[in-house]
Amino acid sequence: MAEQLSQSEQDYPFKLLEYINGFKISKVIFTASQLGVFDLMLQCQKALSAECIAKELHTSQNGLERLLDALVGIDILDVEIINGKAFYSSTDVSDLYLAKASPKSLSNMILYQSQNIYPLWNFLPDAVREGRSQNEKAFGASSKDTCEAPFRCEEELLKFMGMMHSTWVFAAHDVVTAIDLSPFKTVVNLGGCTGTLAREVCLVYPHCSVTVFDIPEVVKMAKKHFCGIDDCITFKEGDFFNGELPEANLYILAGIIHGWEEEKCLQLLHKIYAQSKPGGGVLIVESMLNENRRGPIFSQLLSLNMLLQMEGKERPPSEFFKLLTTAGFKDIQVQRTGKCYDVVLGIK
Amino acid sequence: MAEQLSQSEQDYPFKLLEYINGFKISKVIFTASQLGVFDLMLQCQKALSAECIAKELHTSQNGLERLLDALVGIDILDVEIINGKAFYSSTDVSDLYLAKASPKSLSNMILYQSQNIYPLWNFLPDAVREGRSQNEKAFGASSKDTCEAPFRCEEELLKFMGMMHSTWVFAAHDVVTAIDLSPFKTVVNLGGCTGTLAREVCLVYPHCSVTVFDIPEVVKMAKKHFCGIDDCITFKEGDFFNGELPEANLYILAGIIHGWEEEKCLQLLHKIYAQSKPGGGVLIVESMLNENRRGPIFSQLLSLNMLLQMEGKERPPSEFFKLLTTAGFKDIQVQRTGKCYDVVLGIK
Repeated sequence: MAEQLSQSEQDYPFKLLEYINGFKISKVIFTASQLGVFDLMLQCQKALSAECIAKELHTSQNGLERLLDALVGIDILDVEIINGKAFYSSTDVSDLYLAKASPKSLSNMILYQSQNIYPLWNFLPDAVREGRSQNEKAFGASSKDTCEAPFRCEEELLKFMGMMHSTWVFAAHDVVTAIDLSPFKTVVNLGGCTGTLAREVCLVYPHCSVTVFDIPEVVKMAKKHFCGIDDCITFKEGDFFNGELPEANLYILAGIIHGWEEEKCLQLLHKIYAQSKPGGGVLIVESMLNENRRGPIFSQLLSLNMLLQMEGKERPPSEFFKLLTTAGFKDIQVQRTGKCYDVVLGIK
Repeated sequence: MAEQLSQSEQDYPFKLLEYINGFKISKVIFTASQLGVFDLMLQCQKALSAECIAKELHTSQNGLERLLDALVGIDILDVEIINGKAFYSSTDVSDLYLAKASPKSLSNMILYQSQNIYPLWNFLPDAVREGRSQNEKAFGASSKDTCEAPFRCEEELLKFMGMMHSTWVFAAHDVVTAIDLSPFKTVVNLGGCTGTLAREVCLVYPHCSVTVFDIPEVVKMAKKHFCGIDDCITFKEGDFFNGELPEANLYILAGIIHGWEEEKCLQLLHKIYAQSKPGGGVLIVESMLNENRRGPIFSQLLSLNMLLQMEGKERPPSEFFKLLTTAGFKDIQVQRTGKCYDVVLGIK
């Protein structure tokens, strides 16, 4: 891989300049999402001039035109020039993933990345130097309470939960089908947040009873903002570190293990093992690193993000194997999905 | 193009997630550059463990290891695992473009992008809404004096000049060879900053006499930090908007026109025309937009950057044609390079 990049870059650093400009592309998409460009376009279902869009969204025409052009440049929008005037239209990608009304919308994730993660990453040099979270420098939150940071006010919690919802909207299906979970009749999703992943379990395994277990503030917000009338899942309030766990054939930990250091992970896994019956299991869902350290880049970036934001990290399969066997689990199955998130199943 | 992206993205938003994570890749490269990773690797000329690099650069091993792995993930560094321990080494790309000691180093550009442009782009929503520079919000500089912003202190000016130097180190050759400039015996590079582009003119056209014309602060810094002993170019102090222009057969304006609104551009071009003899010319060097608004993305991002930072914009060939003909120039030649920067030549 390194050789490939080298050869094409010797004469002119095309790829390197693309990387250097990467933050601008991110902010182009974030800004259009925040201003409502993709929503207006889905709603109107026809090509619109920059003048018209600027008027509807209360922006300058000068600035908006440049933003729209950059979105065309990365194939997120389309443009047609009629009699010298540009008319912009949405694409399948923007309608499906960027418009807020789409059930597959990433808009909540984008808002969180733009407002919380982008400013935090400005402190990456400090994080690498010090080897610890930079929440305090970025947002004034105490770095001792990093895991509490998203919960410092209702608005921030909702934004964080929106981000989690966006993630599982596109990632849950691959994750819950990676290993056949049909033998497990009762499932508890520990730290299941909005319930988005849990609902996918119900959809794929309709005979399974699924419960989301999370702290009261999260459950309250989930019920208020992320539940339909005939929800197929149930919610239970509690604290998986300090309280009792509900009974279940399978415990799912999705995006939990990567937030904590070895010791706390083992504490939680031991607790799950103690509560499980023989044949019961734990399914860990995380973005898995390669053993050879060569990727995947998504997982490597997430691991740096954990450094900046929490106290955890991403892990390769061997480390999950070690954690699970130390806690007593056996018959460990690792299944990569080829997408962003992978799974590891351990059985008691 | 839009169709292509759509089809591959329908099932899973791979490309979109790459764009959303683009800012993290930028900051990974910026951070490694700022911490001196690429310099140490070029210097040592052998594979090093994270432990050793962390010790040399006074960083945490935990944070540095993740940074190195991400650099491997994007092919900027290489890794080899020996007896379970990872040893990292540089690549041709990192030695050539990222180590500060390389004559082709982009490290100055990277520092400027990381410390000045990245925080500025956090205000892109405001810039698009208001249609104007966000220097004031980002750095407290008066937006009326946007063009003065890089010059607010010696350190900032040096950083800005370093960025310009990096740019012309990789971009100048294509630009000065795009059109045969050998008929012009005396060349003045207006706002020529560090002289990097001007030196490339000397190199390609050794019989040409080349002068850099810039404000006294810039000339002073250029002589102090960017000049060798036997420099092939001469410097002249002045202000191209308010003072007299030196005589020349060819005036070069590289990255100048894109910083200003129509009126000021025309004022400058009229002045150059008045000062030129018949047969004399002006060479505009800018990153040119496509007429069909579909790219290039580098130029489109630069145009958004001008919105955030100055009062100018990037332009397609037709607008340069209009500017130059309005100022009186004829025989206008537009030459795209297929790289980042293009040229337009006008003759009196």
